[in-house]
Amino acid sequence: MNIQPIGGGVCAPQGFAAGGIHCGIRKNKTKRDLALIYSKTPCAVACTYTQNKVKGAPITVTMQNVADDTAKAIICNSGNANTCNANGIEIATQMCELTGKALGIAPADVVVASTGVIGQPLSIEPIAQGMQQLVQSLSTQGSSDACEGIMTTDTFKKEFAISFTVDGVPCKMGAIAKGSGMIHPNMATMLAFVTTDVAIVPALLQKAVWSVVSDTFNMVSVDGDTSTNDMFTCLANGEANNPVISSADSTAYQEFCAALYHICTLVSKNIAKDGEGATKLLECTVTGASDKAIAKKVAKSVICSSLFKAAMFGSDANWGRVLCAIGYTDAEFDITKVDVSFASQAGSIAVCKNGAGMEFSEDKAKQILTQDTIQITIDMNDGAGSATAWGCDLTYDYVKINGDYRT
Amino acid sequence: MNIQPIGGGVCAPQGFAAGGIHCGIRKNKTKRDLALIYSKTPCAVACTYTQNKVKGAPITVTMQNVADDTAKAIICNSGNANTCNANGIEIATQMCELTGKALGIAPADVVVASTGVIGQPLSIEPIAQGMQQLVQSLSTQGSSDACEGIMTTDTFKKEFAISFTVDGVPCKMGAIAKGSGMIHPNMATMLAFVTTDVAIVPALLQKAVWSVVSDTFNMVSVDGDTSTNDMFTCLANGEANNPVISSADSTAYQEFCAALYHICTLVSKNIAKDGEGATKLLECTVTGASDKAIAKKVAKSVICSSLFKAAMFGSDANWGRVLCAIGYTDAEFDITKVDVSFASQAGSIAVCKNGAGMEFSEDKAKQILTQDTIQITIDMNDGAGSATAWGCDLTYDYVKINGDYRT
Repeated sequence: MNIQPIGGGVCAPQGFAAGGIHCGIRKNKTKRDLALIYSKTPCAVACTYTQNKVKGAPITVTMQNVADDTAKAIICNSGNANTCNANGIEIATQMCELTGKALGIAPADVVVASTGVIGQPLSIEPIAQGMQQLVQSLSTQGSSDACEGIMTTDTFKKEFAISFTVDGVPCKMGAIAKGSGMIHPNMATMLAFVTTDVAIVPALLQKAVWSVVSDTFNMVSVDGDTSTNDMFTCLANGEANNPVISSADSTAYQEFCAALYHICTLVSKNIAKDGEGATKLLECTVTGASDKAIAKKVAKSVICSSLFKAAMFGSDANWGRVLCAIGYTDAEFDITKVDVSFASQAGSIAVCKNGAGMEFSEDKAKQILTQDTIQITIDMNDGAGSATAWGCDLTYDYVKINGDYRT
Repeated sequence: MNIQPIGGGVCAPQGFAAGGIHCGIRKNKTKRDLALIYSKTPCAVACTYTQNKVKGAPITVTMQNVADDTAKAIICNSGNANTCNANGIEIATQMCELTGKALGIAPADVVVASTGVIGQPLSIEPIAQGMQQLVQSLSTQGSSDACEGIMTTDTFKKEFAISFTVDGVPCKMGAIAKGSGMIHPNMATMLAFVTTDVAIVPALLQKAVWSVVSDTFNMVSVDGDTSTNDMFTCLANGEANNPVISSADSTAYQEFCAALYHICTLVSKNIAKDGEGATKLLECTVTGASDKAIAKKVAKSVICSSLFKAAMFGSDANWGRVLCAIGYTDAEFDITKVDVSFASQAGSIAVCKNGAGMEFSEDKAKQILTQDTIQITIDMNDGAGSATAWGCDLTYDYVKINGDYRT
């Protein structure tokens, strides 16, 4: 493994440019609300989408546009989800047409995404008026502006890039994402766009995306609400000139998956850390489960518990709520074998052994739990299955942000 | 139907006495922490329990004691759940022995329950020392004291009684319950104890309990966390002297079920209303679903959404979050047929038609949503299935209460 962090976000890979502007969808003129990612070289494209039956119009349009497995651009606005609107499909289609025309590419080579309020009609006017400026803003330094353009209540940018090798050839991968609220991806994710210059056939790109997303984005929850607009898109333009990855049994495919897993884990952790109102990242690792599926269910059940999340906000070592959340997981296991411990940079402490409480120092527990990243480790002592899930604490600010989101 | 509200709680039915004292499980001497309900006449008994795999020790002991379908007493403490403790079964068994001895009945005729913190050993000392005083406190006016004895973070007592007729014979039914937090019953309920003087064979009592609980307590959620100690118990001592109900096809059985449904709905609504930190009762009614199971899933999905609950706290008519929660329900339906409206004593307002937003007055919506009971009505326009679920808003106080529950 030779994965190294680098700068540049989605523009780090060869051949990608990006940009972001304020076009007027949002009233706040200091907030960018329209983002574009572009590769002149045609890209293999793989997407996963929300499993919510209410799907944003952009998702329907994107599904059609990527049916041929190729794309060259991603257009995304924030401030309006373009969902549950009578003219949603029409608007999303127009966004692709405007983007295609401005870039001189086919509208069917455009991936379209929207995020923001549900059920308020999205006007095409500001997008049409801003398109020329957006295309002019495209540059290899534009990842950060694009990242700002897709943010909603996020408090910091989720932008990452890595270098790695495939068959010995240097390759790069970049990502931008928006998270914060309505975050409980189900076989899909919040908005995340990954670019890479790796050469890979579309079928394997899709396979890698499904596999990695299920272990990363789908293991994140901020509030248990699966959004209507979740979308993960990976564009691979092949400009690294590695021998095209075309076999799932190849070392090259494993190298690619490892890189994709690395960057998706980074994004996932940061989305959890920046959950609406969050003060702490919760990282729950389950080991010793009888299989991986059970480990995943248990880890996710714990990071989704409102009671446990509130306890973590209060730095209260209320491990009974961990046991409670393990207990209502829809899976078979023996609760009397379960051990639980808490850890952070301030140390670690065992709190439960064989499903029953242990004596521990409340002072030490408090010290551990007042840090900003908390590891919850659960050993099921029942096999070799393991998994990690990421969440955040439940705070006053979550209630504040969501008590009056629209106005 | 001839159901009338009356006073007296669990002591309203003939032959029941109750009492509650402070014995010392809690530090706060002004808070009762031990409750007893008693019928000299043997009762048919039916229970449902939490489906959480972590089960409180009292549940295990009660399951054994009611295996013969009869009971005479219920002993319940608050302040400690007696769950995830190495000696839990031993303590719960001793609670039954002490109660049996003091009442002069078999320990196997005692139902035992506990509620409070998980994972802290429960000392038998205060219970043993207080038992004589508890039995002396038994009276036909003692329902209210017993109700206080089982409360945790509840802010008001859930105590109800009704009169009704079975085969023309006057009968009564009473209930006490505790709710507040860790409330998301799954085929069971929080703590609720119902007494009745109806004569009914145990098998039908159990059938009625399962049927009614699935439409009432199991349709309540405060925070999505299914407790380890949920228990619903109904004692029927037959002192009303109605002809014993022994057929599920009889009018008498229907009359009994209607009464049980009535009192369980009352308790359920009040548990939701008094959810931890809640300022509003949310009542979500789904009509026009293709079947009842889908109606139930949709109603419960909406009242469980953290985002929707926070919007209700802020009196924000953010109906997009209702559509989002409907959309991630695990059921088949056509979202483009769905209509949504909000109502309260200040009026009603339609906000969504055929899955898309409608123009509506934000001022009027605000007026409706600032009331303390909000009806959310969802018409699926897809059949005749209907269901109602009850929840509450998500508030700063929920976070406050649960950020530091143990200390």
